Amino acid sequence: MEPMRIECIAIGTELLTTRRLDTNSVWLAERLAELGLGLSLKTAVGDSREDLAEVFRAALDRSDLILTTGGLGPTFDDFTKEVFAELLGVPLREDAPSRADILAFYEARKRVPPPANFKQALIPAGAEALRNQVGTAPGVFWEDPPGHPGTRILMFPGVPREMKRMWEEHALPRLRAQGGRPVHTLRMVVGGVPESTLDQRTQELRERHGQLEWTILASLTQVELLARGDDPAALDRARADFEPLLGADLACVGQGNLEEAVLDRLKARGETLAVAESMTGGLLASRLTAVPGASAAFLGGATVYSAQAKRALLGLDGPLLATEGTVSEATSRRLAEAVQGRLGATWGLAVTGNAGPGAEGDAPVGTVHLALAGPGGTETHTFQVPGDRNEVQLRSAARALDLLRRAVEARSR
Amino acid sequence: MEPMRIECIAIGTELLTTRRLDTNSVWLAERLAELGLGLSLKTAVGDSREDLAEVFRAALDRSDLILTTGGLGPTFDDFTKEVFAELLGVPLREDAPSRADILAFYEARKRVPPPANFKQALIPAGAEALRNQVGTAPGVFWEDPPGHPGTRILMFPGVPREMKRMWEEHALPRLRAQGGRPVHTLRMVVGGVPESTLDQRTQELRERHGQLEWTILASLTQVELLARGDDPAALDRARADFEPLLGADLACVGQGNLEEAVLDRLKARGETLAVAESMTGGLLASRLTAVPGASAAFLGGATVYSAQAKRALLGLDGPLLATEGTVSEATSRRLAEAVQGRLGATWGLAVTGNAGPGAEGDAPVGTVHLALAGPGGTETHTFQVPGDRNEVQLRSAARALDLLRRAVEARSR
Repeated sequence: MEPMRIECIAIGTELLTTRRLDTNSVWLAERLAELGLGLSLKTAVGDSREDLAEVFRAALDRSDLILTTGGLGPTFDDFTKEVFAELLGVPLREDAPSRADILAFYEARKRVPPPANFKQALIPAGAEALRNQVGTAPGVFWEDPPGHPGTRILMFPGVPREMKRMWEEHALPRLRAQGGRPVHTLRMVVGGVPESTLDQRTQELRERHGQLEWTILASLTQVELLARGDDPAALDRARADFEPLLGADLACVGQGNLEEAVLDRLKARGETLAVAESMTGGLLASRLTAVPGASAAFLGGATVYSAQAKRALLGLDGPLLATEGTVSEATSRRLAEAVQGRLGATWGLAVTGNAGPGAEGDAPVGTVHLALAGPGGTETHTFQVPGDRNEVQLRSAARALDLLRRAVEARSR
Repeated sequence: MEPMRIECIAIGTELLTTRRLDTNSVWLAERLAELGLGLSLKTAVGDSREDLAEVFRAALDRSDLILTTGGLGPTFDDFTKEVFAELLGVPLREDAPSRADILAFYEARKRVPPPANFKQALIPAGAEALRNQVGTAPGVFWEDPPGHPGTRILMFPGVPREMKRMWEEHALPRLRAQGGRPVHTLRMVVGGVPESTLDQRTQELRERHGQLEWTILASLTQVELLARGDDPAALDRARADFEPLLGADLACVGQGNLEEAVLDRLKARGETLAVAESMTGGLLASRLTAVPGASAAFLGGATVYSAQAKRALLGLDGPLLATEGTVSEATSRRLAEAVQGRLGATWGLAVTGNAGPGAEGDAPVGTVHLALAGPGGTETHTFQVPGDRNEVQLRSAARALDLLRRAVEARSR
């Protein structure tokens, strides 16, 4: 049997600019992999009728399953359904339940739907509308469209939340029936180790577990080591071999990221955290509070972006601050201890530094001073991180989280 | 004159099966935009001869300029050049300077090139090799390939560093010489207005300026109205018509986003801002401090994620806090006034609310209380925002920024 040819088409002019990356198809590729299905290609295309027609025509000729995201909205430049209907020579028809859903959506919000919104209830004749329980654009499931027997088209909204829910509730049950052999994944998140070092350190062991498919994924904030295979026992054996090799560098296995790993460890020990951020300006707090249930361990902190804030919120001494400098190891230490003390937290974590673009005092761009005040005293670390302003902020926040993770772990041993 | 049709093809199975995003084409899109050139579509395709042939064939049929990244390496699964040559019916020939470059590359590292590496010196007959000064895979520039007069193909290595250097040194000079007709863009960022409302409100005026190409881009934090065209005067006329229509909803024109618009206005007036965040947990501060030069107006603030933090950092009264509730209009008001007072800021902006996943006291998920303490007193706003935890946080931060933007603007009038 030939493998099913599957392609993803992400629709939206913004996806061709630098402002937005198509993350929907990455998510869909992951879900397909869980069904043992692989993506053959993916395309991003702008909101142009002509370009859509071109891309859809090619997809209909070559693929068995076509997933699209976007272009189902109420505005003038949404025409995914129109273009498919035109290409396949069928009219659009209003789907009564979809119209009712749109009305109900607005009624629940005590608003009257703009007339343009009813355009979303139009579905190609012969296709099936997929309910959207979190937005107004229904999706479409189209099996065996005219002239293309055996082909299936799934059209999703471009809003990730709506697409994901529609996948779970409507697409997945339809695809599961035809799925292949499931693929299992082992995911290990590593903190504080560069990609190339991890690559070298794990090469031999990866080769020994060569029946698995290995990938190293590096981002600004963490590195992931991924293994895929169809035998769960082989993945368990790999995990047993990798855990001792990675040791304290291993932040978590399975789902999760660095901040979740830190919060989990704190919660398990009944410990709390407070932060004082100068250079990262709220990023550290924001990454922590993005995690549901963060409040069980994270008390909050101060974004001490100015000397005023360092004095007013954390009581730093003005003249001393002027002497020691706002970007310094001494100031980071004072901030960490002050925020720990004021909030009565087990741990106080502070960052000062210069994210650029200009030099700040003597501190070149990329200088970072971390301080961690804990039950056993305060440790400080100074280093240089590469990158532009946002990269420096992201890398510094990640380093701070990893410093805390290692300290909490060391105390657990 | 028809605009040039340009497409990007990223080659590599890893771009389809893992969480790796194709960032090369994002970078290339940015460079093209600097030349006034827009991308019509982009594709990611695996290392399969058959799939490549399919994608290349479609590209040759529809595009004037085809940029590929990846598939130029020495391994068994690199065949970008082979597939193009086959499709276009020409043989591959060894390029002597490329062979010499490969030898020199290895000699400089005191190593002998593996025989497979010389495969990289093979170039389709009639095409031109592009030197790779930081790696071993030369690129290819192919003008008017057989049967496709007017088409140009640029093949780059997939390693971002090599691709970027090759673009600067070899592709850019060639494209510049041939020029594209520059495309001009008008970008208007709108705050606090839903996409569908903006669509309706601007429909008539967009039609009146129908010679421009219009797009509405909505994200969780702002909506952008984009117009593209080749006549700068037409864009100026559109701007003159849209500014009065959008009025106070228009946050900025040109580059920038909501937070930059807010900071620019504050700086222009010599005013300062401090924030107190409970539910957004540092996100508001983090968005502001992502902007270079934010410190000229943003003093910092408190992430008051716990009752402790509200008391210890901003002096809120414990029993009163218990009575009024941590998620309430009254508490937001006290936080805004406290952070304004403690930091001596012109404006104090506070957010309390419930981002979920569970209800918090009486506050259902999505409840947001904003308070803005300013020179003329304190205003408060309560509303419901849709979405999951991170969406609620993002939308609430955006609403808070937009509230401030409008207040600062109202005082400027």
